[in-house]
Amino acid sequence: MRINSLISVYSLAAAFILISSSVTLAASPASDPTDSIPHSLFTVGIGGGLIGGLYDGFYPYELLKKHGDFGLGAPDKLDGELLVFKGEIYKTQHTGKTSLVNEHELTSFAMVNFFRADRRLAPPKGLNKGALFHYLDSVLTNVNGMYAIHISGKFKTVKTRAFPPVKAHQHTPLAEMLNLQKFFEYKNCEGDLIGYRLPPFMDNTNISGYHFHYLSTQKDNGGHIIDLLTDDIVIEIDTLNSYTIQPPATKDFEHFDFKKNREEDIKSVERGGKN
Amino acid sequence: MRINSLISVYSLAAAFILISSSVTLAASPASDPTDSIPHSLFTVGIGGGLIGGLYDGFYPYELLKKHGDFGLGAPDKLDGELLVFKGEIYKTQHTGKTSLVNEHELTSFAMVNFFRADRRLAPPKGLNKGALFHYLDSVLTNVNGMYAIHISGKFKTVKTRAFPPVKAHQHTPLAEMLNLQKFFEYKNCEGDLIGYRLPPFMDNTNISGYHFHYLSTQKDNGGHIIDLLTDDIVIEIDTLNSYTIQPPATKDFEHFDFKKNREEDIKSVERGGKN
Repeated sequence: MRINSLISVYSLAAAFILISSSVTLAASPASDPTDSIPHSLFTVGIGGGLIGGLYDGFYPYELLKKHGDFGLGAPDKLDGELLVFKGEIYKTQHTGKTSLVNEHELTSFAMVNFFRADRRLAPPKGLNKGALFHYLDSVLTNVNGMYAIHISGKFKTVKTRAFPPVKAHQHTPLAEMLNLQKFFEYKNCEGDLIGYRLPPFMDNTNISGYHFHYLSTQKDNGGHIIDLLTDDIVIEIDTLNSYTIQPPATKDFEHFDFKKNREEDIKSVERGGKN
Repeated sequence: MRINSLISVYSLAAAFILISSSVTLAASPASDPTDSIPHSLFTVGIGGGLIGGLYDGFYPYELLKKHGDFGLGAPDKLDGELLVFKGEIYKTQHTGKTSLVNEHELTSFAMVNFFRADRRLAPPKGLNKGALFHYLDSVLTNVNGMYAIHISGKFKTVKTRAFPPVKAHQHTPLAEMLNLQKFFEYKNCEGDLIGYRLPPFMDNTNISGYHFHYLSTQKDNGGHIIDLLTDDIVIEIDTLNSYTIQPPATKDFEHFDFKKNREEDIKSVERGGKN
């Protein structure tokens, strides 16, 4: 009886998702080829720790791949920006170079999931970042929901950034290194935005709100999204329903002060500036 | 090479755990009989949500059991205090009645793990709650570590509390209902404390610091620990290294304001009073 009511809640949610879709997709496969839970986000590291200076990698990319084929993150020593797409892991460095990572190397912070779209949307053209997020907010109505978001197509402008690597054992807070960011601006380009909208209760461990990284179709440009202007794009949504956190296995982590409030730092780092 | 260094970190951690143990235990089984990750905490619901009034159950006990044989939580509508021990789920109601739950019923918030001790400790007798926590702090040196803690033996005093059930769709914040708590005091009793010490970065989704529920050896008394005085006890520790959160699948959850700071409310509810 109670089980039935739980199943009903999930069925209703599923029905709602299908009804509200612009395009109804084929059902997701019943299980992934791995042991991972479907529609679950896997996070390596603690967002507040990365922002506060825990840049040392501790989790190999080859293990990360077992938990998702889609996602974003930071390489060991903050050497660029990570993006995971169709099971491949790319990094864009401060030189602008974008390449596949060496799978034996490490990440200090990353979030991934096995992307299985439950909705596909075709928004109007010519949206800037604010308008795109406003459009997404109108569709993703559960303010406490977790959404993986894949945006593909043509852009009039994409502006990204990447950090240069820190020295070994350097722990300067990220918000104090914003002047070191390198910015890149691509005009009339084509590619994929890989990202998430995460709810307020995930602040600190993850990063709440919207967060996207970019990869060009040619896999030669990328970075953390600072601004954009869309042309002709398609949006796919994977509604997530649980998440797992794997905290760092480092000595520095054991002594890190998580009681300090880094909310403003997290926001300024995500935006790429204090304003 | 990098993989080796990760393995080394884990080996060092494991070695440290063994060296620092009062008693070295046999190695844990390589895998659990279920699909769950070993040494991983599974949480149903969001702690800040329960504290703020999300009392409606949504997750059946029979599913909860698949994620752990040890833990604690709250029943649907806050009808008492939950405890999970050796795979059985008990609730202690405000009448003092302690009984096994009906597995088709629901929990609104619970955390469980498959308990596999990596350390066993025999502390001195006569510790009050503060002294016991101080003793545990001296042993559990990673301030950002996650520990499941099982304390069994004899107690000179155990003081517990349980809440009476709320009405359907009642969402009065828990800190405003502390006057409704019923307290129970047991003298020269024997039983088990089931609980956790969780780190500051898990505040809001879970409850940071120490948190214990009690079950008598006869399985006839229990509740949320308010105070205690130990006699002859043994402590077992399971060091956890990851956690999963399953947010509520309820409409009320979708509109819940997690931006409000409930840190003080969480502390006063855990302690059982404002002081």
